[in-house]
Parts: sequence; structure tokens; C-alpha cells
Amino acid sequence: MEILNVAVAGLGRIGKIHLKNLARNFTEIRVVAAMDVFDESKAIADEFNVPVFVKTFDELLAVPDLDAVVICSPTDTHADYVVKAARAGKQIFCEKPLDLSLERVQEVLEIVKEAGIKLMLGFNRRFDPEFKKIRQLVDNGSVGDPQILKITSRDPGPPPVSYIKVSGGMFLDMTIHDFDMARFISGKEVKEVFAKATVKVDPEIGEAGDVDTAVIILTFEDDSMALIDNCRKAAYGYDQRLEVFGSRGMAQAENNFSNNHKLYTEAGVSGDLPLHFFLERYDASYNQEIREFIDALVLGSEMPVDGEDGLISIAMGLAAKKSLKENRPVLMTEILDRRAN
Amino acid sequence: MEILNVAVAGLGRIGKIHLKNLARNFTEIRVVAAMDVFDESKAIADEFNVPVFVKTFDELLAVPDLDAVVICSPTDTHADYVVKAARAGKQIFCEKPLDLSLERVQEVLEIVKEAGIKLMLGFNRRFDPEFKKIRQLVDNGSVGDPQILKITSRDPGPPPVSYIKVSGGMFLDMTIHDFDMARFISGKEVKEVFAKATVKVDPEIGEAGDVDTAVIILTFEDDSMALIDNCRKAAYGYDQRLEVFGSRGMAQAENNFSNNHKLYTEAGVSGDLPLHFFLERYDASYNQEIREFIDALVLGSEMPVDGEDGLISIAMGLAAKKSLKENRPVLMTEILDRRAN
Amino acid sequence: MEILNVAVAGLGRIGKIHLKNLARNFTEIRVVAAMDVFDESKAIADEFNVPVFVKTFDELLAVPDLDAVVICSPTDTHADYVVKAARAGKQIFCEKPLDLSLERVQEVLEIVKEAGIKLMLGFNRRFDPEFKKIRQLVDNGSVGDPQILKITSRDPGPPPVSYIKVSGGMFLDMTIHDFDMARFISGKEVKEVFAKATVKVDPEIGEAGDVDTAVIILTFEDDSMALIDNCRKAAYGYDQRLEVFGSRGMAQAENNFSNNHKLYTEAGVSGDLPLHFFLERYDASYNQEIREFIDALVLGSEMPVDGEDGLISIAMGLAAKKSLKENRPVLMTEILDRRAN
Amino acid sequence: MEILNVAVAGLGRIGKIHLKNLARNFTEIRVVAAMDVFDESKAIADEFNVPVFVKTFDELLAVPDLDAVVICSPTDTHADYVVKAARAGKQIFCEKPLDLSLERVQEVLEIVKEAGIKLMLGFNRRFDPEFKKIRQLVDNGSVGDPQILKITSRDPGPPPVSYIKVSGGMFLDMTIHDFDMARFISGKEVKEVFAKATVKVDPEIGEAGDVDTAVIILTFEDDSMALIDNCRKAAYGYDQRLEVFGSRGMAQAENNFSNNHKLYTEAGVSGDLPLHFFLERYDASYNQEIREFIDALVLGSEMPVDGEDGLISIAMGLAAKKSLKENRPVLMTEILDRRAN
Repeated sequence: MEILNVAVAGLGRIGKIHLKNLARNFTEIRVVAAMDVFDESKAIADEFNVPVFVKTFDELLAVPDLDAVVICSPTDTHADYVVKAARAGKQIFCEKPLDLSLERVQEVLEIVKEAGIKLMLGFNRRFDPEFKKIRQLVDNGSVGDPQILKITSRDPGPPPVSYIKVSGGMFLDMTIHDFDMARFISGKEVKEVFAKATVKVDPEIGEAGDVDTAVIILTFEDDSMALIDNCRKAAYGYDQRLEVFGSRGMAQAENNFSNNHKLYTEAGVSGDLPLHFFLERYDASYNQEIREFIDALVLGSEMPVDGEDGLISIAMGLAAKKSLKENRPVLMTEILDRRAN
Repeated sequence: MEILNVAVAGLGRIGKIHLKNLARNFTEIRVVAAMDVFDESKAIADEFNVPVFVKTFDELLAVPDLDAVVICSPTDTHADYVVKAARAGKQIFCEKPLDLSLERVQEVLEIVKEAGIKLMLGFNRRFDPEFKKIRQLVDNGSVGDPQILKITSRDPGPPPVSYIKVSGGMFLDMTIHDFDMARFISGKEVKEVFAKATVKVDPEIGEAGDVDTAVIILTFEDDSMALIDNCRKAAYGYDQRLEVFGSRGMAQAENNFSNNHKLYTEAGVSGDLPLHFFLERYDASYNQEIREFIDALVLGSEMPVDGEDGLISIAMGLAAKKSLKENRPVLMTEILDRRAN
Repeated sequence: MEILNVAVAGLGRIGKIHLKNLARNFTEIRVVAAMDVFDESKAIADEFNVPVFVKTFDELLAVPDLDAVVICSPTDTHADYVVKAARAGKQIFCEKPLDLSLERVQEVLEIVKEAGIKLMLGFNRRFDPEFKKIRQLVDNGSVGDPQILKITSRDPGPPPVSYIKVSGGMFLDMTIHDFDMARFISGKEVKEVFAKATVKVDPEIGEAGDVDTAVIILTFEDDSMALIDNCRKAAYGYDQRLEVFGSRGMAQAENNFSNNHKLYTEAGVSGDLPLHFFLERYDASYNQEIREFIDALVLGSEMPVDGEDGLISIAMGLAAKKSLKENRPVLMTEILDRRAN
Repeated sequence: MEILNVAVAGLGRIGKIHLKNLARNFTEIRVVAAMDVFDESKAIADEFNVPVFVKTFDELLAVPDLDAVVICSPTDTHADYVVKAARAGKQIFCEKPLDLSLERVQEVLEIVKEAGIKLMLGFNRRFDPEFKKIRQLVDNGSVGDPQILKITSRDPGPPPVSYIKVSGGMFLDMTIHDFDMARFISGKEVKEVFAKATVKVDPEIGEAGDVDTAVIILTFEDDSMALIDNCRKAAYGYDQRLEVFGSRGMAQAENNFSNNHKLYTEAGVSGDLPLHFFLERYDASYNQEIREFIDALVLGSEMPVDGEDGLISIAMGLAAKKSLKENRPVLMTEILDRRAN
């Protein structure tokens, strides 16, 4: 078997996870280089015995015999790096979103297409064992035709307001995962989006022009529906659940907990809170995600999440923003037609 | 202690429940008469030793020394019976809804007000131990300020289409309970309603001009939100749950089950389905509801659910219908202002 | 249909429950008389419109046309009352235990047999929906052949030491229910008993010659086994669970709770404690128990719990006492053979 | 920091797990050598880049600058290897049990003591997150003084009869983990053991002189008690739970599941079975166990499980065997005194 040469760009929180999984769990690849703009990140590369550490993406692409790059740098670099990597003929895994501008995303996807390379987007939650199981139960007909999908996604606390200002807003930064999940679980495309939202967590978020508490109705092409509810801060921690109701039954995915103990005392029955945040909750999903990327590379098969998935999720975020602003349901064609012009 | 004389009008499914509870569980009242248009219902009155059985509401009101009536007859008689009872100076418990016309409801409530008698509406779910507990946890601050309320209400199967045709539609017949629950749990008033709905259960329901599967966003006056989801048919039976998310935490109410067993076999872990339908699930709530009605009569205190509660829930149903028809969020003032004209 | 005339002897806590259920839930019987040694209990009889109240059991039996008696008086009267009622030709429901002496129990059962009347013993837990469900799952083969049965039974607090002194000890007063449950669930007879016990709750219980914390191994005739654990005081309240493990699977019965809410806060996930004590937890079972007694009377069918069941449970209690004293497993034949002599 | 040189002896199922964890998760150690009697195992060593592969324990000990050995070879080699490693001055991690003979274990521990090296025994379940949590709740007083401990341990299926014949029997092979767990959770020593057991799974196990279904009562020095139940085959898979009841409350540890989904259909509510077997269920515990071994080596601190723990668990197994044979409770002093002679 030929060993694939892989490089990682960006050694922040998520880059480090991907690097660890790439370095430890595969015999069919070799991590030949890592890149980060900060000198300090070299220590991370060293920890996992990565032979080459560079500070620019161009240098990374210049590493000899490189087959694929895993892009984990800040969002505003994604489009440029993907374009460069595609033009250099490298296979690409890129963290979501590709870009906050629909036009730019479309442009990038066309370049990727022309380059004939494969691009996988980092919608890691599709690889979470809880959600995968629900998807299976939909797939194998256990719940029948999906009619109402409910997705709850609440964070333990908001990011800094400085981050929120450049994030594209809650719908593009946080709900984007739920938009993708709605399509993944139901196997259906969305035709209309209606969003209501407000500021309940921190007035500074409102002053920054964003919201922190939202509910969204998605209408699928067959008129079945999804309900999403989001909040930037749940006092009890990270809350990641979903429920799909169909013609034959209902399937529910629960939060994950560090242990399942129950304590009975005079004060009542109690248990632990859900796992703290995405690094803990989605640990297995990051592992599985990168595995399926490598598998697709090795086998030459389709990527499990592709550029089109990234495009649609961004269009849904933009539809939600428009719906919130205009207080009316927005058709997806209003957003995607604009693209066509 | 003076014994109150109570009569029951209508001995259908729900009338029989109220009669049983009234006849068995109180020492402070006496059921002196029952009325039903069908001769066969006399056997029910006899079973609970009700001394007088009549076939018209006028005869019922003519029973000497009558203090209060419990109205469980068909919806289209509610308004007339309440008006008659109020004018006769009787205290009234009436099943919901008072009427499907907002104007008629308002008219009736004015007559009730002039008559100076008390009127309680039969929103029995407020007395369900599961939902009461959640209300307590909101009241005592355990969940903080409510931000997102989620109500799931699904029936085991649809009523006959003949019934649906005269029911006022799903929002006024089924969701009306959830509208009331949204106000009860949150302690807040609704300012806007957005509804999406479709026909997934039975095409005949659609042909009758109604829907059978719906999701609704309610926006409260403080911009907090509620999500309701309904279906006329859940393959696994009656599904009655809610969840309130607030600044300090979240409280969830689960379905009720006939027992809590778990069976582990090669095939997996399994347990019983929820209690079959409202008669089983809300058995305790009917009991408690009528108890609080009697208590309020005996003590001369406020009714726990009053005519205004009935009025608002109907207005919410009408707002949902309008929202569905026009595919836009509808302000409650659009409905209630119309009333003012 | 002929109406049966029933009388209740003893209007204490449990007598009042039986009286309420008999008075309210049956059309095929009439409660014609009640008896209690305390004058104050007449108010209870009046509350349920019992026409005759007497203070001695002889007077009760003298009530004309009496068909059956429900005996809820103190344990030390059970044997005498059963004998008197049997000789008077009345059908009998008697609270457990018949007597603390095995010889006396056997004597009473022989008199009952000669009298040709029916006797049902008040092992109410057999009628609990949770435990009945487990029994069904054993009966219908869902768990296969039972191999290990685990019964947990813990009280919220010990009775007064004055009561403990005359109770026959924990095994005959408290564990007796679990002994009966072991036979009921497994459908098997016990051949050997081994008990370990100590005093952990209250030293005064030890000074009174009893124990308050115990574990017991029962060995059935086919060498399958049961584990019982008891404590007179669980800080978190009444704990009534069981689990049966068999060749094809396992079935578990959980505690009952007043509601199923979950509260998520910074402090963790919490819920309510189990229902407080036997009056709450076994409310439905008392109702069902007396219904099955009346049904058996009306239909002339076998009693669902008979005198032999009472006899064996007492023998098991005596075996446990002997085992504890001698710190060795005791064969049931050691106890029951003594009876034969 | 000085890097410790570690070697692994035995690359079977459990050896491979330890090797993987050692090779991947530590920067403070280096796996310098591996040993296995089978040539094929070299591939495993290669997979984790272990530079030296040998076929005898003597060769392994001869590797230069070796600091510690992790012994995962068959049980009958444990004692010899520990003795050799101790005499060579190496730190030792050894899978349980040290030996099936109490005399031999004692002999080995004396040699270890004289050698002044550290020995950790592989009771991995102490490091399971579920059980650790229960231990914490006992430690921090949440459950008060432990009074009744219940441990359930059932396997998905029995090992081959050929293995059972040399295993020392169920008590020394399977229950030994539960014996250690009883001491770990309660923090108390056992004074008496009573065991009942039978053959329910496979008659061949009985013909081999062993049992496959057992219940055991342990009595601690303070007269509190533990109940253990075991079976070699649970139709629904691996069952690993425990419950500790104390003066202030109760804590329960549940099975682990691959996901927490619930599926509601006409047929009932269902969910997944527990994780298949020890490799899946205790995956995290093996990781944590070896981490704490390395930590203790690096810090020079006490081993979290030592030779004495191994000795006592074997003595408990022997007491259980004696109890079963003689059908009476056996004092630990009967076993350990024999050792003293």
C-alpha cells in the first residue's frame, strides 16, 4: 500500500485535534508537515513528531510529495487556502464554513471542480455516534417518513464579543451545524426558512448586531418541517439533542455524560451534567470524521460531506438572517437564485 | 358546612369522568342532577346515584337549590348553556372551548361578568402533576427567566373526519391546549404567532380543509419564544411532553407510562409505550381540576382558569389559522383588535 | 346480579384504604358494617356511609346476611378472627401475616379448610403494576428460565421500637413481603435460606433484639437463587425495586415517582424522590387486590393469594431468623418438617 | 525530564491494549521492547514502532537501560516473571492474578518487597469512570457510611471450557474483579464470605468442575454487607453495574452503551444494548490504569493497586470456593491464617 502524505494547516484548538488523530490512528498515511502562523505552535508539531513545520501556506504546499491538506486555520483564510491547494492538485479537508459570502463559496467550488480534486467539509457532527444512529434509524425505515425534526443546540457560554463581530452572526457560526444536521438526518432539502431571535444572554452581543437566542422553522420540499432552537448560554452546559418524528415512530438522541451515575439522597435524585463542550462531546466524531476523509482518499470514493453541503448550509444561514430581519419566511430560492445571477 | 348542590350537563366521555369524580371524592357537595340528550345516559346517572336525570338544560337549571353546573355537552352548546346558567345565577365549570367565534366568546364573557358568577374553563392539563411541577420550577426560580419553551403534543390517532369538519380545525381543537399551556408555564402573554402545517396523516383531513401536522412559533411580549409541534397521529401513541429553558436551567416533563419496567434481551432494551390517550394520561388532572373548581366555590376564591384564559387561547388559534393561510407571522393585536371594533 | 354484603374489621391505616376502595369502586357489593375497638373510628365508617358500626368482631359477624369479612385489625387478632369468621361460614380477606407462630397458622388453615370457605391473604405487592408486569414477562417467557432474582426493599424510616418488639422481627414483619414476592415472580419454591443482618439504623432496635439492615440468599428448588436486601431506613425514601435475570434476558422494575421531571442546572441534573411510602407507592395495588378478592367471590374462582402462601412466607421468615442466629444456611424442610411433627 | 524505558511482555488481547496506550499517549516514556512467544506478534510490535522484539522474558529483561515491565502474558507465567523482573530491579505492572496459589502469591510479594521495587496489579475496573465516580461519592460522604453494596457482573458468554479448566474457577477468574471492587468502593476489609452457585449456562462447565451462575454475600469488618451476582452468560450482553447504599443515600453506576438513542414505535420504546464486552466497556479504564502506573513511576508515588490487593482478592476467591463446597460462611481468617503457617 502506498502511504499518503498529509499536512495540517492551523494548529489551534481544532487543528490540534485533527493532527493528533492523523498522527496516532493511521498506518496508511504520514503527517509530513504542519503550518501555523505562530512560532509557539512548533511545539505541537514536535509533540506528534511532524518532521516539517512552516509558517505560511505556500511553504506547506511546497513540501515535496504532498497528497492532501487538512485546513484548520481561521475562517477568513479558508477560501484562499482551498483555492491554492486545489490549484496545486492537493486533496482537501477544510473546516466549515468555506466562506461567509455565498458568491465566494460558489467561486471556490468551481475552482475545486475544475481542479478535479476532492474537498471534504468539516461537519463533524454527522460522525457523532448519537446522531449517526438516528440517521441509520431514518435510513432503515424505523421511523418511517420524517415529518417533524427537532434539533436542540445550546452552548455552555458565548464566545468573546470580539469573535462574534467577525463570526458572520449566530446563524452562520452556530446554527450552521444544525442546518447541516437537518439535511443529514432527514435526507431532504429545505425550501423555506423562518427565524425568530432575540438577545437574552448578553446585551453586548446585541450591540454587536447579533442575537444569542433563536428558534427556526425549516420547511422541507415535501412540507415536512424542522424546529431548531439555539442559545449561546445554557446554565447547565452543552446541550446537543435531536428528535425525529415520522410516520412509523420517533427516534431521540440524548446528550452525552461523563458518567451515568445516579445519586439518591434526601435532596432528590441527581446525576452529572452533559459533557462540557464540543471538544469533549464530539471527540469521537472528530476522530471518525478524519478517518472517513482518509478512507475516501485511500479508496478514491466520494467524500461523505462535500462542497455543496457547505454551500447549502451557508445559504440557509443567509436565509435565516434575512427572515429575522424581515420577519417573514424566506424561500431558499430567494438566496440561491441570487447566486445564479 | 353548607353542602353545595351541583349538576352535570352532558354525560359523554368527559362528562362521565367529571360526574365520577364529583360523586366519589367530595363530602362538601352533592350531585343533585344530571342532563343528557340521550335516554341511555340515565344509566350513568343511576350508577353514581344521581337522583334527578333530565334531557334539557332548562330542566337542569330548574332543579331546586342548584348552586353550580358542570357543562360537558358538545362545543356548539357551550355558549348558550353558559349564558343561561349565568343568567340563572349558577356558578359554572365549562369544558373548553367556550365557542369557536371570538365575538361570541366575548359576548358570553360579558354576560358572565354582569351576572357576577364565576366561570372556570376546563384546561385540565394545567392540573397534570407533570406540568404543574414544571410550572412550580418556573415559579420558584429554578429555571430562571424562561427563554425557550418547547411543547410536544401528538395524538395516537385522528378523530373521524366528520368531527374534524365541525371542530374548528386542528389549532382550535388540539393546539388550543398547547396555547394555554404556553401561557401557563411561562406566565407570559403572547404577542405574535407563526404557524406552518401540512397534511401527512390522512389526505381526507386535507380535503376537509384542515391540517394534521403542524409546528408553531409563539413570541412572547418579552421576545422569549415557544415552539409547539403537533401531529394527529403518533404511531407509538399519545405524546405529551414539554421543556422550558431559562436563564438558570432547564426543566423537562416526560410522558407517563403504565409502568417503568425495562426488558433486556438479545434484541435490545425495551419498555412500555406512553399511556394510551388523554383519558389515561390526564386521569389525575381531571380529578384535580374539578377539585380546584369545588375548592374555589367553597372558599369563594378566584377560579384557577377563567374566561379570559379561554378567550386568549381561541384568539391564538385564530392567529395561527391566519398565519398558516397568509404564511407570515401574525400579531395577536391583529386578532384581538378586530374584537375591539 | 346478587349483591354481596361485606364488612370491614379494623379501621386503621390499611383498613381505611380497603373500606374506601370497597365503598367506592364496586356495584356488585355493599359494605354493610364496619368494626373497630375505638369509638373514634365510627367517623370513618360514617364518611363512607357504612350503615352499621360495631366494636367487637362477634357483633360484626352477627350482622344479618353477611357474606364476607375483610380483616385489617392488629396481627395478634388475625388468627382468632379468621377462625371465628370461617366457623360462621364467611368468606375472608385477611391482612398478612395470619400469625407469627407456624403451628397456629397451620391450625387456622385447617379450620378454614374444614369450613369450606375461601381465604385470601393481603400480599398486596403481587397486584402492583410494576411487579405484575415483571411477573408477566417471566410468565410469557421473555426472560427465559429465572436464574437470579434481586429484590430491594427499603423503608423511609423504622417503625417505633415499641412496635418492633411485638412485630416478630424484621424478617417476619418486613421481609415477609419480599419472601412472597420471590415466589410470585419466579414461580418457584424455596429450599434454603441464608441471612446476614446487623444494626445500622438505630441501636435501640438492636437492644430490642431485632436487626434493621439485612441481606438474604434464597435458593430455589432448581438451584436458581434470589438476593434480597432490606433496610429499615433509606435517607432518600421508600425503595421498592426488583430485577429478574434469566436464560433469555433480564427484566427490571423501578421505583415509582410522583412525577418524571428532570431539572438541569449548574448544579447537575436532578429529579424527584420515589413516592414516600407504601400508602402512596402501593395505592393502585390495594385497589387491585381488593378488586381481585371481590371478583373471586363473585365468580367463585380461586383466590389469587391463599393461606398456603401465607404459611410459606412465615416459614421463610422463621428460616431466616434461624439462619441469622446460627450463621448457616437453613433448609426449608428444617422449618416445615418441624410443623409436620 | 528523564524518559523512562518500558517493555511489554505478552502481546495477546490485553497486551496489545497496553502497548497501544503506552505507545501513543505518553511523552515521558518510550516503549523500547516487546516480548511474545509467538513470531506473529512481531507485527504488533512493528505497528507501534517498538524497536526490539524478543521471544523470551530473559531477553526482554536484558534490554539495556530498561526501567519497567508491563506483564500481560498468561496467568501461569505471572509469578515467575514478576520474580525475575523484581530481582532485575525493574518496576512492574502485572495483570491479575499474580497466581492461583495463595502461598505462591505471598512468596512473590516477599521477593518484591525485598527487591524494593514497585508492583502494580491490573485491577482495571478501579479506573472505570463509572465506578470511580461511585468511589468518589463514597469518599466525599455523599452516601454516608456504606451499609449494603450490590455488584452485578455478567458476561455475554462463557470462555471455552478448555480455558475454564485452567482458570482456577469462576471465583478466581471472574468474581475476583468484583471482590476487588467491593474493597475499592467500600474502603473496608471483608471478614466473611458466603457463596452459592450452580450450573445454568452450560453443563460442560459443571463437568469441568466449575460453576457458571453465582451469588455471594460478603460481610465487612463493621458488619456492613455486599451482594455479588455473577453469570457467565447474559443474553443481552455484558452487564457491569453496582450500587452502594449508605446512611445518607445511594449511588448507582449503570452499564455503558454505544449510544443513548431511544426509538418509539408501535412495538414499544427501545434502545441499544450495553457495550459488548470488557474491551469496549473498559477501554477508558485500561487507558487510565496504565496512565496512573506511569504517573506513579514518574512521581515515585504509591501504586494505586498493589500486591496486597492482589493477595486479598485471591484469598476471597479461595474463601468463596470453600464456602460453596462446605455450604457455610467462611471467615477470611480461615484462609489467611493458613497462609501464616
